[in-house]
Amino acid sequence: MPLRVVTAARAAGHDVFALLIEGWADPADFGHVPHAMVKVGAVDDAYAKFRAQGVRHLVMCGRAHRPSLTSLAPGGGMLKLLARIGSAAFQGDDGLLKAMVKVVEEDGFTVLPAQAIVHDALPLAGLLTAAAPNARARADIRRGTAVVRALGAVDVGQGAVVQQGLVLGVEAIEGTDALLDRCGGLRREGAGGVLVKLVKPGQDRRIDLPTIGPVTVEHAAAAGLAGIAIEAGGTIVVDRAATVAAADRAGLFILAFDPNAFEENVT
Amino acid sequence: MPLRVVTAARAAGHDVFALLIEGWADPADFGHVPHAMVKVGAVDDAYAKFRAQGVRHLVMCGRAHRPSLTSLAPGGGMLKLLARIGSAAFQGDDGLLKAMVKVVEEDGFTVLPAQAIVHDALPLAGLLTAAAPNARARADIRRGTAVVRALGAVDVGQGAVVQQGLVLGVEAIEGTDALLDRCGGLRREGAGGVLVKLVKPGQDRRIDLPTIGPVTVEHAAAAGLAGIAIEAGGTIVVDRAATVAAADRAGLFILAFDPNAFEENVT
Repeated sequence: MPLRVVTAARAAGHDVFALLIEGWADPADFGHVPHAMVKVGAVDDAYAKFRAQGVRHLVMCGRAHRPSLTSLAPGGGMLKLLARIGSAAFQGDDGLLKAMVKVVEEDGFTVLPAQAIVHDALPLAGLLTAAAPNARARADIRRGTAVVRALGAVDVGQGAVVQQGLVLGVEAIEGTDALLDRCGGLRREGAGGVLVKLVKPGQDRRIDLPTIGPVTVEHAAAAGLAGIAIEAGGTIVVDRAATVAAADRAGLFILAFDPNAFEENVT
Repeated sequence: MPLRVVTAARAAGHDVFALLIEGWADPADFGHVPHAMVKVGAVDDAYAKFRAQGVRHLVMCGRAHRPSLTSLAPGGGMLKLLARIGSAAFQGDDGLLKAMVKVVEEDGFTVLPAQAIVHDALPLAGLLTAAAPNARARADIRRGTAVVRALGAVDVGQGAVVQQGLVLGVEAIEGTDALLDRCGGLRREGAGGVLVKLVKPGQDRRIDLPTIGPVTVEHAAAAGLAGIAIEAGGTIVVDRAATVAAADRAGLFILAFDPNAFEENVT
């Protein structure tokens, strides 16, 4: 996703500067774009680099690894920032990210969602694949929706796998691929299950949207799933053409649906 | 737990007959007690064996593996039973068990909870170990309680692991040991996390109560946790002396607490 943001932003005529977090991104991937690397939590250093480059708009994307508080470099400005954030950092898994966006905007930057740059990243409601969910899969999608919403309400995870009405697994911080791999070993005989991914209620849609891509499809196929159901307009599909092609090859469906009006949106 | 039920029931003067499910229980463990084995879903066979033995009271315990519907032996009476249960079998992970208890009672048996036989199995509120939860661990217990309750409300899982406010993992059908093993790989540096186990809201307390034992403590210690918090009066501690001894050796706390009045119950 970060590389797609770079490409799309340049295509739209923007100057792009990539600030990479050490250990989270590989600078070799960003050789074609002005970039710099900072340590996790080195807020002062990041601000200095942004100001030197004249950066005013930020897009936060890519996979984040929430660091332990004790691993942060001392004196980098992160503790000062955490002091401003206060207890929000400990209120749920999204609390820290949300609070950081707020603080960064107070400091004069504007945070844009990746999907404002990569316009085709969020599919609208509809079936993306040749395969479609049958009645059993639709029932699993309904059950998964109830479970993911309940989890989202307490600010945990964005995904669950349901097969034949049974919840095989629920996602916390392990990531969707690890969830799918584990559910492959827990699956029952018979009709395959469904991965359901939803936006959390109240989630800031500029950061940390649920995301799938070709690799997700591979793990879902290996786990014996029948398909993937994602929240329409709220789930990033990285490289949509490759993702749909992978699903069509594996015979999986990908359905973008409105969880508030599910029955009406099944095609 | 099944062997402890056998021992305690005999100590109380009851005749005991053990009906084992093929593939779920090892008959070698039950050589000292009258027993028989049936296939999963062989309801008619099970009823015949109970009647031949004059069984009127049932205790359902041990680890159950929910079979896929297609794996049930045809003609064993399970399909007839499922027809009586109807769609309840597909309403959540507890739906099937609850409905089976209802049907079995309609058929003239009385289902007793294991804890009615093994009297010390359900600790009351209080600290069981030498170690006690500190403020950080108490905050993690509060967060874990909110998460497990939200999950329980949609009839999924009974456990979660929280470290430094971050939900490392949530339990579905993989079991607590698998949850702990996975969280060991996801843990952050610094203060260890907490495993929280709660009864589901509305759960029939005669079946499938959350359970911990010495093996749970070993996995929790290997995952770097600081302790385990269980719902007082609702969590079975298998072999309490060995469980507490294992926790004391590893320096873990085990707290039995009332989730409705947590602050008051911390000792």
